[in-house]
Amino acid sequence: MDNVLAVLNLGEFAQIFSKMGMFPVFDLAYYIVSIVYLKYEPGSVEVSRRSPVASWLCAMLYCFGSYILADIMLGSSPIDYFQYNSHILLASAVWYLIFYCPLNLFYKCVTFVPIKLVLVALKEVVRTRKIAAGVHHAHHAYHHGFFIMVIVGYVKGSGVALMSNFEQLLRGVWRPESNEILNMSFPTKASLYGAILFTLQESHWLPVSKSTLILAFTLFMATSKVVMTARHSHGSPFTLIESWICHLLFGSPLGSSEEDHHHAAASAASASPLKTKEELSEGIRKRKAKKAE
Amino acid sequence: MDNVLAVLNLGEFAQIFSKMGMFPVFDLAYYIVSIVYLKYEPGSVEVSRRSPVASWLCAMLYCFGSYILADIMLGSSPIDYFQYNSHILLASAVWYLIFYCPLNLFYKCVTFVPIKLVLVALKEVVRTRKIAAGVHHAHHAYHHGFFIMVIVGYVKGSGVALMSNFEQLLRGVWRPESNEILNMSFPTKASLYGAILFTLQESHWLPVSKSTLILAFTLFMATSKVVMTARHSHGSPFTLIESWICHLLFGSPLGSSEEDHHHAAASAASASPLKTKEELSEGIRKRKAKKAE
Amino acid sequence: MDNVLAVLNLGEFAQIFSKMGMFPVFDLAYYIVSIVYLKYEPGSVEVSRRSPVASWLCAMLYCFGSYILADIMLGSSPIDYFQYNSHILLASAVWYLIFYCPLNLFYKCVTFVPIKLVLVALKEVVRTRKIAAGVHHAHHAYHHGFFIMVIVGYVKGSGVALMSNFEQLLRGVWRPESNEILNMSFPTKASLYGAILFTLQESHWLPVSKSTLILAFTLFMATSKVVMTARHSHGSPFTLIESWICHLLFGSPLGSSEEDHHHAAASAASASPLKTKEELSEGIRKRKAKKAE
Repeated sequence: MDNVLAVLNLGEFAQIFSKMGMFPVFDLAYYIVSIVYLKYEPGSVEVSRRSPVASWLCAMLYCFGSYILADIMLGSSPIDYFQYNSHILLASAVWYLIFYCPLNLFYKCVTFVPIKLVLVALKEVVRTRKIAAGVHHAHHAYHHGFFIMVIVGYVKGSGVALMSNFEQLLRGVWRPESNEILNMSFPTKASLYGAILFTLQESHWLPVSKSTLILAFTLFMATSKVVMTARHSHGSPFTLIESWICHLLFGSPLGSSEEDHHHAAASAASASPLKTKEELSEGIRKRKAKKAE
Repeated sequence: MDNVLAVLNLGEFAQIFSKMGMFPVFDLAYYIVSIVYLKYEPGSVEVSRRSPVASWLCAMLYCFGSYILADIMLGSSPIDYFQYNSHILLASAVWYLIFYCPLNLFYKCVTFVPIKLVLVALKEVVRTRKIAAGVHHAHHAYHHGFFIMVIVGYVKGSGVALMSNFEQLLRGVWRPESNEILNMSFPTKASLYGAILFTLQESHWLPVSKSTLILAFTLFMATSKVVMTARHSHGSPFTLIESWICHLLFGSPLGSSEEDHHHAAASAASASPLKTKEELSEGIRKRKAKKAE
Repeated sequence: MDNVLAVLNLGEFAQIFSKMGMFPVFDLAYYIVSIVYLKYEPGSVEVSRRSPVASWLCAMLYCFGSYILADIMLGSSPIDYFQYNSHILLASAVWYLIFYCPLNLFYKCVTFVPIKLVLVALKEVVRTRKIAAGVHHAHHAYHHGFFIMVIVGYVKGSGVALMSNFEQLLRGVWRPESNEILNMSFPTKASLYGAILFTLQESHWLPVSKSTLILAFTLFMATSKVVMTARHSHGSPFTLIESWICHLLFGSPLGSSEEDHHHAAASAASASPLKTKEELSEGIRKRKAKKAE
């Protein structure tokens, strides 16, 4: 793969891309998209009125959950990242603007579809970098701890999703019947696969340079998420291959309802006549969020 | 403010007061008041009969929750404080006397109103010192981590309240619809404001010596809590200013039901003809605790 | 006691026994029995079909929960033990064979009663060693932290049971009305008493060598668990003495329903005509597990 890139003169670009600083532009996009997702959650606007402290804490979990979880996993202080005052202040400003801006102007701007698609793409750049950094960090602490590397990379990529039960509890909501590990969403799954890839790379089992892998994974994630956001779809490009592997290895029943999503995602050109359950529920969530303004 | 104190020759007194040892007198008062509050909780007496281990663990969380949370926040062992055997033994003795003393004598003594008021005042002395120590400790670990300083001071002041959901779970009770961050009680709020004040002092943004701040904050907390305990009130002296600030900054509706409590707390001289909801529920809690004997 | 053993020439045997390596034979037995218990849990087979990742995580909690809890208690990385790739791979292989083996062959083999009894006995060998190692480790970190030594030994012996609420949550089950501390099972209670004994030994208050204590406690645990497993009983040999001590110290009502279990456990020879509630529920659990295949 490196050869192909050399021909296309992409190796140098990958190098530069993988060294690029994330603060403040990319981090800002990450904070905006994360806190917009928080505002989509039913009841979050009401909580922001009743208890600004709880709302702020949830926003911090959405923005820095990946750092908190990774620090817990590696036995450091869970609030270690809160020493970077400028990051916290930037995220707090975004939280304030999204929840309390007069006329809801800021929220309307950042959820205007073209802007939102750019922000979503930028967020995936940060996510990929976080996975790579998490795996590298764990590799530094445990040279042969392959499982630890995968776990830390995974939590760095998934962030607040993995602790959604407890984040909801902070807002007074409790849904024990589901969690992000029982029903993985696309970003969580992709983070897991990404963490495995980066662990293989870090252990020299994958004959690719790290900068190339970062570039390739970023492109894949950004494209997938932009397409999914544009189409309001929650299906994942992995569904077909996953359902076959799960059927062979774990005896899971084939042809689950998730496959429909795959077809929907594959035929990105043709408009689906029927809204899937997730799309409908996303629509409902948004309507509720709007009504709560 | 230091000048005023110098005139009143209070500077030296503040110095001595801020250096005073807390063990065993003040700590004893802290343990007694904390475990009495545990006994107020519905169902706790029944748990103490069925499972003394669970009851003891809850009592330890009530007494040492602030140390446990602060240790977690700073990445140390959560049971680090349990190395101080004398403190644990003292708290265990208090737990035993409050829950199992023949004829319930000890409980009746310490909840006799004049004695209880003294104990409540002594407890606030410990709380203030804990907030100051927490902020100082965090400042030592993260020199410019202002958010970390506030968070550690806050958890040191609030203690078990912040993990009440999980403390209740230990007793088989689960109330996800509420938590201490969604509905802050007066001590939790005061701990937050205190942590902010001590952080400002530690960062030299507040032109007051630490011993003066400790003395002033202790006096404020002790007076407020004694008045509130004497009047069985749960209103907070912050309510009026808070409701205005929240209205301006966060668009919270003005004139919430909490304001009534403020008026009640302000007009401390006149007896309120109507019991507020909290007072009633405190009454019910106490009656239940008595019935369960 | 050492003298008695010297006469019987058991001292040397105890020495050798306490130095014996646990990996892989004993650890394998531990993993098998633990994951079989996971398969008994209602709904776990369904989870293994729907979400292999959640099922694998639960299996890891069942196998390594004691290490995770002890690492949390001592402030290290909770996934520190995951650096031992061979242990994780062995446990993962056991998990795969128990949940996905064609015709359910492996599960049927290991739950064949004579084999299961041997495995249960081997598991108790590992448990005792874990308690001793936990107490020793805590003693190393806190020389006079007797409470810390008991707590760490206790969590090392009890393992996943102490976090069963959160392990169930991972599988989408939430039963807040009970937990392992409110209703201690026999292994949890025995771990607590064992941790106290090993702490006394480590502090030189118990005039017994550590190897002797390990041998004696292992024999007691293995015998008890084998008898209880053979008789499908959940009663504990401690019940009679416990109910008297709890009655004297904590005013617990005498003659609780648990006493019946004690009588049942004591009269191990005579077959009980009536199945106790636990036995029935164990039968139901097994039938459900079989049906779910």
